[in-house]
Amino acid sequence: MRAVVLKRYSADPGDLVCEERPVPRPGPGEVLVQIAASPINPSDLAFIEGRYGFVKPLPIVPGIEAAGRVVAAGSGLVPRLRLGKRVVCAVQDKGDGCWAEYAVTAAMNCLPLPDSIDDEAAASMLVNPFTCYALVQEAKKRGARHVLASAAGGVLGRMLWKFGAREGLEIVGIVRRPEQAEELRARGMRHVLASASSDFDERLRALCAELRVSVALDAVGGDTTARLATALEPGGVVLVYGQLDRGPAQADVRELIFRGKRIEGFWLTSWLRRQSVPGTLWAWRKIQALAGDDMKGQVRARHPLTEAPLAVKSYRENMSGGKVLLVPGR
Amino acid sequence: MRAVVLKRYSADPGDLVCEERPVPRPGPGEVLVQIAASPINPSDLAFIEGRYGFVKPLPIVPGIEAAGRVVAAGSGLVPRLRLGKRVVCAVQDKGDGCWAEYAVTAAMNCLPLPDSIDDEAAASMLVNPFTCYALVQEAKKRGARHVLASAAGGVLGRMLWKFGAREGLEIVGIVRRPEQAEELRARGMRHVLASASSDFDERLRALCAELRVSVALDAVGGDTTARLATALEPGGVVLVYGQLDRGPAQADVRELIFRGKRIEGFWLTSWLRRQSVPGTLWAWRKIQALAGDDMKGQVRARHPLTEAPLAVKSYRENMSGGKVLLVPGR
Repeated sequence: MRAVVLKRYSADPGDLVCEERPVPRPGPGEVLVQIAASPINPSDLAFIEGRYGFVKPLPIVPGIEAAGRVVAAGSGLVPRLRLGKRVVCAVQDKGDGCWAEYAVTAAMNCLPLPDSIDDEAAASMLVNPFTCYALVQEAKKRGARHVLASAAGGVLGRMLWKFGAREGLEIVGIVRRPEQAEELRARGMRHVLASASSDFDERLRALCAELRVSVALDAVGGDTTARLATALEPGGVVLVYGQLDRGPAQADVRELIFRGKRIEGFWLTSWLRRQSVPGTLWAWRKIQALAGDDMKGQVRARHPLTEAPLAVKSYRENMSGGKVLLVPGR
Repeated sequence: MRAVVLKRYSADPGDLVCEERPVPRPGPGEVLVQIAASPINPSDLAFIEGRYGFVKPLPIVPGIEAAGRVVAAGSGLVPRLRLGKRVVCAVQDKGDGCWAEYAVTAAMNCLPLPDSIDDEAAASMLVNPFTCYALVQEAKKRGARHVLASAAGGVLGRMLWKFGAREGLEIVGIVRRPEQAEELRARGMRHVLASASSDFDERLRALCAELRVSVALDAVGGDTTARLATALEPGGVVLVYGQLDRGPAQADVRELIFRGKRIEGFWLTSWLRRQSVPGTLWAWRKIQALAGDDMKGQVRARHPLTEAPLAVKSYRENMSGGKVLLVPGR
C-alpha cells in the first residue's frame, strides 16, 4: 500500500515521504480501515513538528482522523461488529496513523457512519466537531452564556459560533485583522473584535463587563492568552486548546493573583477519556445531526498521498481558508 | 502626627514623603491604632508601584500591616472590645495604611496580641504567616505531600519550609543561585535546586517524578512559572502568589493542553474572604503558637518614618536579607 511516512519531527514538509509499505494487520480489538479521505488538522501540524500530545518513534505514518471502510477485523466483538461498515476513525496513541491507503486502529476508535454523510464530510467529523462539542459543554458547565473565542475565523471558530448558538452559548469572536472581523460581522456574528485594532483590549474588556464573560476558548496561546485573561471578569478562566502562536501562553500575574483568573488547557483526548460510552455516543448523535450544516468545514483542496508535502505546506500557509484533504484513491 | 505619604505610583522611593497630618478618626466599626512597628513587604512594594490588588486615590499612606495599640474606638461592639488592647492589624481596601504614627482600620482587621510577642515580631505576623498558613492548606487540600516553592531563600520561603514540615508538607526549594542552594542545604533543607544551574530543568523534572509533585507555590512569575509548570506531574497546578519577576507568568502551551497543567493565582485577601471567623481564629492560634519560632522573620533594619524612602530602597535591593521595619517611635 501507499503511505505517507514522517522521517524526522520538523516543520519541513520535505520530511514527509510517500512510500510503499505492507498493509498492516489488525490485532485483538483492532480493525483495518481502508481510508477514503483524511484531513490535515492543526493537531497534525503539531504532530509532524513533535509538538503534539504524543510523540511516536520514527519513522511513523501521521494522520489523526479519517473516513473509510472497515475491511478486516481482529479478535473481539466490537471489531466483528464494525467489519464491512463505513466509519470515521481516530488514530491510537501508539502506532501508525491515517495518511495511508490502509490504517489499523482500535475498533473503539471507530464510529459508524450513515450513508447520508459522504466521505469528504465524514473525514473531518471527529477532531473538530468533538472538540467544538466538548468546548461548548465545558463553557456551559462553568455557567457561561457568552464566551470569548480566539481564531474565530478558522474552521473550529465558525463551528463554535454556529453550534454554540444552538446550545445557548454565544461567542465573542476574536480575529486578528479588522477585515476578518468585517467578514464575520457581515455573515451575522454579533460580537467580533480584531486584536490588531488599537482599542482592542479596552473594547474587549468593556464587552466582557457588559456581557459578564468569564470563560475564554483560546486556540492561539502566547500573548493572546494574556489579553483574553485580562479582559475576562474576575474569577475567569482561559481554556487553551491550540498553539497557533508558537510562544508560551502568557498571563498578567496581577490578573492571576488579584482577580482570580486561571489558565487551563483542553485536549480532546483527555476529555474523551473522562466521558462515559453513552456520553460519547450522545455527542456523536448530536454531531451527526449537524453534519451537513454547522459542523461541516469547507473543503478547499484534495490531494493524493504523493502530494502530502504540498498539501501540508498549502494548509499551513492558510489555516483558516478551508479543509485540505488527503485522498488515497486519487 | 507623622505619616509617610505616597504622591505618585512609581518605583521611585522619592515619591514617598514624610508629612505632618491630622490624626484620623475611627468611624463605625473602626478603631484607631497607635502604630508601634510596620514592615515593608513585597506587597507594599507592589502597592507603591501601583501593581497591587487595590489601587487607591492619591495621595495615600501605604503600609499593609502593623503592630500597635488600639487607642480609640468607633461605634460598635468589636471596636469597644479592642479598645486599649495590643493588636496586629491589616489595612482596609479603602483609605490610608499603617506607615504613620496612627492608623484607622476595621476592628475586624485587628487581632489581639499576647504580651509574650513583642512589637517587632508582631509587626509581620499577618501577611507572611497567614499567606504561609493558607498556601500550606491549599497545597494539602490538593493532596500534596511535597510542593515546589520558588524564592525559597526569602522570608516566606523559609516560613513555608519550617511550617510546612510541621504540617506534613515538605518543600522542594527553588532558588536562583547555587550559593543560595548551598546555604539552605547547609541549614537542613533536603531538596533545593538552583534555577541558574544548567541541569536545573532536568533535575527538577526528575525530582517531581520521584516525589510525585503536582503543586508549585510560585512567588516569582515570568519564566519561572513555566519552568515549574513543566516540571510538575501531569495535572499539576502552579499557584502564583508573587510577582518578583515583573514580566507576565508563562506556561508552555503543550503542558497546559496535553499534560493538564493549570496556572492559578493566590491572594491572601481573597482567601481570607472565603474563610469562616472560626477558621481565621484557628489559623491565628496556630500562627501565634509558632510566632517565636518558624513564623518569625529576622529583622535586619529599623527606620523612623522620615527614612521611609531609604528603608524601601534598602529592602528592595535585598528582599531575602531579612525584614525592614518602619518604627514611628524612633
